[in-house]
Amino acid sequence: MKLYGYFRSSAAFRVRIALNLKGLDYEQAFIHLRKNDQRSGEYLSINPQGLVPALIDGGPVLTQSLSIIEYIDETRPKPPLLPADPVGRARVRSLAEAVACDIHPIDNLRVLQFLSRQFGHKEPDIETWFNHWIELGFEGIEKTLASDGKAGKFSHGDAPGLADICLVPQVFNARRYPSFDLRPYPTIMRIFDECMKLDAFQRAVPEKQPDAE
Amino acid sequence: MKLYGYFRSSAAFRVRIALNLKGLDYEQAFIHLRKNDQRSGEYLSINPQGLVPALIDGGPVLTQSLSIIEYIDETRPKPPLLPADPVGRARVRSLAEAVACDIHPIDNLRVLQFLSRQFGHKEPDIETWFNHWIELGFEGIEKTLASDGKAGKFSHGDAPGLADICLVPQVFNARRYPSFDLRPYPTIMRIFDECMKLDAFQRAVPEKQPDAE
Repeated sequence: MKLYGYFRSSAAFRVRIALNLKGLDYEQAFIHLRKNDQRSGEYLSINPQGLVPALIDGGPVLTQSLSIIEYIDETRPKPPLLPADPVGRARVRSLAEAVACDIHPIDNLRVLQFLSRQFGHKEPDIETWFNHWIELGFEGIEKTLASDGKAGKFSHGDAPGLADICLVPQVFNARRYPSFDLRPYPTIMRIFDECMKLDAFQRAVPEKQPDAE
Repeated sequence: MKLYGYFRSSAAFRVRIALNLKGLDYEQAFIHLRKNDQRSGEYLSINPQGLVPALIDGGPVLTQSLSIIEYIDETRPKPPLLPADPVGRARVRSLAEAVACDIHPIDNLRVLQFLSRQFGHKEPDIETWFNHWIELGFEGIEKTLASDGKAGKFSHGDAPGLADICLVPQVFNARRYPSFDLRPYPTIMRIFDECMKLDAFQRAVPEKQPDAE
């Protein structure tokens, strides 16, 4: 298996965690997002969406982190990354999408670059923007995790899964600016700390990747 | 079943299409996004994420459109909205997420409002922003649909599914500004036209909803 990623990409970070949780070996190729390598002709011929991650598992190129993780879970069912019951699966997917649809894409590097390069925003505006979307998203996630009775050691029961895989890289992002106050999210942070005790999460962190700067 | 939505919400539009494709009856509750009803205490007690759609199907509240659609597909398997093979499923989910993660959230009403109200951007900037993210996203989707040999009448073969469910509302959005040129996306538009021949898509369009203005 070959994973196209970038050490700082949250979406690639998610896939690294999933592969580690499944105990799978994988080769990494590095697409330097700050050099815009994801828009090179060579990479666009691999992933026309011009984004990381992409995964090759002996077949066509797989793209989009959530889609890749569902694929990994369907083809290597143990340990499962989603619960067995449809309502539980919907809950976990919703928590994952609360990060992967409603926080991360708005705070993505290319969006921040557009704000600064096209619209001329300076750092204080970028910081306001960045923190705003995390705050809105974490508020809803915290409320769900703290109150619906389904979280255990992890976001859903006592085993790590798709929701945790999305949550942990987002907490890394939330630490980008010291101005972001993580204290209103004790359940998120408790689950984050639990995840970080696991080797699968530890080995996936940005600073431990071969392309880390 | 009860669907909390808003006629103009792309994400609610997706769920309406999915419910219609499955031939399911549902009651609608309307959350007025321009009046910010999604952030009212009453609605936040239903969906702590403060977003539409939300679906109640005799159990806990289900949230996030993709998660809801996967739930509908798992609990009512016919007709399927995803292919049976893991690689096909990954392709369809990736196309869906190319819209639901990488276009729609960045162009969402709340983001446009933040640009105008917090950052003071005027209409020409909003239009530039709005069109930019659709163009980037559609470029990748068009390339995949036109070149990987998996599209048929619809995005994946000859039956409508999750990718089409996400694509159609995004084409509606792309028509918001006449400045957006849809001609570079002939495959997207061919599939869009095919979808719009179906009653399930027709009945789901914003202007046919009871809360349409």
